[in-house]
Amino acid sequence: MLADGYNFMVSSNEFKQQALSQLIELLRIPSISALPEHKADIERAAGFIESALKTAGMTRTGQIRGAGNPLVYGEWLGAPDQPTILFYGHYDVQPPDPLDEWKSEPFSPTIRGDNLYARGASDDKGQTWILIKAVEWLLTRDGRLPVNVKFLIEGEEESGGEHIEAYLASKPAQLAAGAVVICDTEMFAPEMPTICTGLRGLVYGEIHVEGARQDLHSGVYGGAAPNPLQALAEIICALKDKDGRIRIPGFYDRVEKPSPAEVEAWASLPFDEEKYREAEVGSPALTGEPGFSVFERTWARPTFEVHGIRGGFTGEGAKTVIPARAVAKVSTRLVASQQPGEAIDQITTAVAAACPKGVKAQFKLLHAAAPSLVNTASPYIAKAAAALQETFGARTVYMRSGGSIPVVGLFDRHLGIPSVMMGFGLPDDNLHSPNEKFYLPNFYRGIDATARYLEMLAA
Amino acid sequence: MLADGYNFMVSSNEFKQQALSQLIELLRIPSISALPEHKADIERAAGFIESALKTAGMTRTGQIRGAGNPLVYGEWLGAPDQPTILFYGHYDVQPPDPLDEWKSEPFSPTIRGDNLYARGASDDKGQTWILIKAVEWLLTRDGRLPVNVKFLIEGEEESGGEHIEAYLASKPAQLAAGAVVICDTEMFAPEMPTICTGLRGLVYGEIHVEGARQDLHSGVYGGAAPNPLQALAEIICALKDKDGRIRIPGFYDRVEKPSPAEVEAWASLPFDEEKYREAEVGSPALTGEPGFSVFERTWARPTFEVHGIRGGFTGEGAKTVIPARAVAKVSTRLVASQQPGEAIDQITTAVAAACPKGVKAQFKLLHAAAPSLVNTASPYIAKAAAALQETFGARTVYMRSGGSIPVVGLFDRHLGIPSVMMGFGLPDDNLHSPNEKFYLPNFYRGIDATARYLEMLAA
Repeated sequence: MLADGYNFMVSSNEFKQQALSQLIELLRIPSISALPEHKADIERAAGFIESALKTAGMTRTGQIRGAGNPLVYGEWLGAPDQPTILFYGHYDVQPPDPLDEWKSEPFSPTIRGDNLYARGASDDKGQTWILIKAVEWLLTRDGRLPVNVKFLIEGEEESGGEHIEAYLASKPAQLAAGAVVICDTEMFAPEMPTICTGLRGLVYGEIHVEGARQDLHSGVYGGAAPNPLQALAEIICALKDKDGRIRIPGFYDRVEKPSPAEVEAWASLPFDEEKYREAEVGSPALTGEPGFSVFERTWARPTFEVHGIRGGFTGEGAKTVIPARAVAKVSTRLVASQQPGEAIDQITTAVAAACPKGVKAQFKLLHAAAPSLVNTASPYIAKAAAALQETFGARTVYMRSGGSIPVVGLFDRHLGIPSVMMGFGLPDDNLHSPNEKFYLPNFYRGIDATARYLEMLAA
Repeated sequence: MLADGYNFMVSSNEFKQQALSQLIELLRIPSISALPEHKADIERAAGFIESALKTAGMTRTGQIRGAGNPLVYGEWLGAPDQPTILFYGHYDVQPPDPLDEWKSEPFSPTIRGDNLYARGASDDKGQTWILIKAVEWLLTRDGRLPVNVKFLIEGEEESGGEHIEAYLASKPAQLAAGAVVICDTEMFAPEMPTICTGLRGLVYGEIHVEGARQDLHSGVYGGAAPNPLQALAEIICALKDKDGRIRIPGFYDRVEKPSPAEVEAWASLPFDEEKYREAEVGSPALTGEPGFSVFERTWARPTFEVHGIRGGFTGEGAKTVIPARAVAKVSTRLVASQQPGEAIDQITTAVAAACPKGVKAQFKLLHAAAPSLVNTASPYIAKAAAALQETFGARTVYMRSGGSIPVVGLFDRHLGIPSVMMGFGLPDDNLHSPNEKFYLPNFYRGIDATARYLEMLAA
């Protein structure tokens, strides 16, 4: 069951198998935060996590209720002279569609080979489970922990809910800690333990376009009536050019170049662009801004993406409708030092400026998150790198991630604590896609590395 | 119940009220040909029509089965020395979505004021019912008809089904007639009896775009992976410019200018462009090719329209997906003398040429119809104009329609007979839109005008 590179085993095989069985139960809960009809599943998942924290040996647990899905809290504070670490994860998942592309049901976890397939297997139930089980193992083995631990597990990470922001903004005393460990990122490559040092921010919203008062027949009105879908196409093309350059005025003004040391380190990472295109992306060609490497384009450059377009008729057959309204769901990724508020203003202005004749167009914000960059000089980062290296038997690498974990910026801003982004996912884990998986040897090593990290923090 | 301009009454009030009650029953059947789940409703509607033809006094009826929805046939041939007229209509309807914009349920016909609201009220169940009831009235009153009549009522007009084309292509002897009366168009304005002399053709299809092998996370892959929705936006903008000019190479080459007499006649029609924009379209401005009037743009110029875009995530909330695939449903309207086959080739080539880097794009045809122009010198047209004028007490006007009735071209091509497009719909009948309606005085006058037409044909 364990990979060749597995050099250091902390927890027992029996414990690991039990942890896997429990994770499978958690993955059966379709706790999709973006879909209101899954509200009851969200509650079930929150209850499952709180119960697990109790079982793990937390001396105090609870659910922080507010406007949104519950935050699950747990703590063990029996090492008064030692540092305190805060563990963050999330129990909500992305919607599973398109369903017909899953080889096994998204909420019927299935093991094939060394992988566990399910929505949330790696993002982020599997990785959250690593944190809980590492603590449980140490308490089981020693009856105590080497440092103090706190847990804050949220349920709106995938839907941009604002409950955690409101809670963190209240600067709750019970969250006081030296650092927050976030287990929601991925390794650069198999067998290459990784700490993530930078994340992109996000502005996610909708472009609403209104044309005629109601849907019209394209035969009768085609040629005279505006078509909001055509207008959306024009606006989208006005926001990003064919080469992938964002055309929103001012959008690149605050974009920082990665440091020469970072660029050099990235160049030394094992990376075969053609293999990445063929095996990972699977498209005829890669796209994106000319003159930048794939790492730069996905880690250090902002993006603009269309996620879906609603309006008109998309069923089987033919309906000759000119829709009255259409909506595009779009997002931009931000990089340091872009500021979400300014980016929102720039997008809003650019959408209004690109609005063609005959329609009204408006950008409506859904949510936003700041980009972040982490200081690798922190001892919390250095010790995490050491624990990973010991467990994996390989040098820990520093990378960035193109994704957004809004909470990283919030911990920094409201609690003033650094984030240690120690992730065990793999690049082919199919996050947010059909056939999401978690590589089980990394699940097990994640438990051990996290336990070792707590031991090292006390040393 | 009858409008002021109602000068000539053929059928009795009692008969008309009964005809309305029966129409309401027909409108309750959701015979949506574009949606396979309504197959049973299609069968019910076909049975309803055949039964009505029997009740009306047809001496022979039947359903012509084949690949597609049944064609309903009926005939009364008891006037051997007189002309034969073929009546065409369709019993299928458009899908009713968006449902939430209907003031009453689309398949619960509701009378408000002088209008009957339901999907299919005017297009085309209401107008088909006019033809059947006109014949029934004459047979009830006289025991015989002044001319021979045949009916061919189809069930795939709204979905581009090919059953009728295959049937007409077989040149069935039982359809021999001097002309076909098609009651599926609209009047230019209330109280202005109208014959339609030209229709636009149609090429309806889908642009399929494929990018990555599977849906991707926009954080991880945004900046490197192609986005099929962005690609669709680029292709759509490449096919039509911001001013409404089609950019498909060669598309305008065969477009005929309307005759000077036509342009002059159109200029004399009562038309207030600002009122049309405000009251009918309801958009901030009209769109379309510069330098052409609204009549030219909607009757005599080709169009390109997007009807819907499928792919990615369009539900509530936020999903940061780069979809692997996306599809745009699009159509172009053709005008004389564009040829569907050539237009399909031009679109196919233009889509391929506009395909951006990183994706594959392909145009897939759903169906096509040729444009048509009618010779107003035919006596079948002249007598129809006279019957309308007598019933409405107003001069009959000739107009074109921007819509497509593919069967007009088929009757011409396969049976060599002219189409008499005598329609009783109004411009604000909301065809293909929520709150479709039929103006009841026109329903009644339609019955009378059709009965008078049959009498005049025999004279």
